[in-house]
Amino acid sequence: MSEQALVTAAVNSWKLNIERADRIFSPLTEEQLLKEVAPGKNRLVYLWGHLTAVHDRMLPLLVLGPRLHPEYDALFLTNPDKAVPTLPAAAEIKKAWDDVNGTLLAGFESLSATDWLQKHSSVSDEDFAKDPQRNRFSVLLSRTTHISFHVGQTALIPK
Amino acid sequence: MSEQALVTAAVNSWKLNIERADRIFSPLTEEQLLKEVAPGKNRLVYLWGHLTAVHDRMLPLLVLGPRLHPEYDALFLTNPDKAVPTLPAAAEIKKAWDDVNGTLLAGFESLSATDWLQKHSSVSDEDFAKDPQRNRFSVLLSRTTHISFHVGQTALIPK
Repeated sequence: MSEQALVTAAVNSWKLNIERADRIFSPLTEEQLLKEVAPGKNRLVYLWGHLTAVHDRMLPLLVLGPRLHPEYDALFLTNPDKAVPTLPAAAEIKKAWDDVNGTLLAGFESLSATDWLQKHSSVSDEDFAKDPQRNRFSVLLSRTTHISFHVGQTALIPK
Repeated sequence: MSEQALVTAAVNSWKLNIERADRIFSPLTEEQLLKEVAPGKNRLVYLWGHLTAVHDRMLPLLVLGPRLHPEYDALFLTNPDKAVPTLPAAAEIKKAWDDVNGTLLAGFESLSATDWLQKHSSVSDEDFAKDPQRNRFSVLLSRTTHISFHVGQTALIPK
């Protein structure tokens, strides 16, 4: 069925971008995680936690379940980098990153094409009726490009 | 039809990322285009031409028509930044960027969901039979994240 093939392509694109991010962040030491992507810009540890927080928010947004790490918002999303004095250890972020992305992917694989075209949880029925493109599939695509946005930044750190 | 809605979401994601890139690059002066995204890294002019070259290659790749600017490969793709002494003027790159993206978008809008799932031109019939995910839709998704990869880098330039 062609609609399923379209969904598979988008989930594959998500997986590919998660794998790229994982290859960048997961091997880093505590010290390497403190590097900034450019002078005065976000540290790698912040970007890793930021992606984890944004992905964690996708669980309720896509109606896949409750958040696993709501405490990551204050650390990595609603406050800028360096505003919070103590961040979780690398091993803790790694576990949160794996748990969140694993839970999300299992959820993605449970959705049919019709499910993907349903509204996401932060749009009202009324607004969704006006703009049916405010669906779960559009969230998947925009969060996939969001990963790539930050992965591109990490490519600028001198080797 | 749900397959058409899935395609629309992906084309909208492409358009959104093109618009973001356009807002960054199109207003820049010749002098601003010479800024590097980070010390010693690609200049903005190179990234703009690079995106134009990659998008131009999508025309034959997606079987939408011949390339408009094959000469951009040597300037912005097969050679690194600063390898070629003279680059086109900003106004010329702007015109190429608009022409390429306009031609691509018109092509995208002519494709049905079934067309999007056909093989792209750089995979053989035999390889496509083995892996039907090597289709035009996957190319669209990967080139969309590619825009975001470089747009993320431009966000690091000090204001």
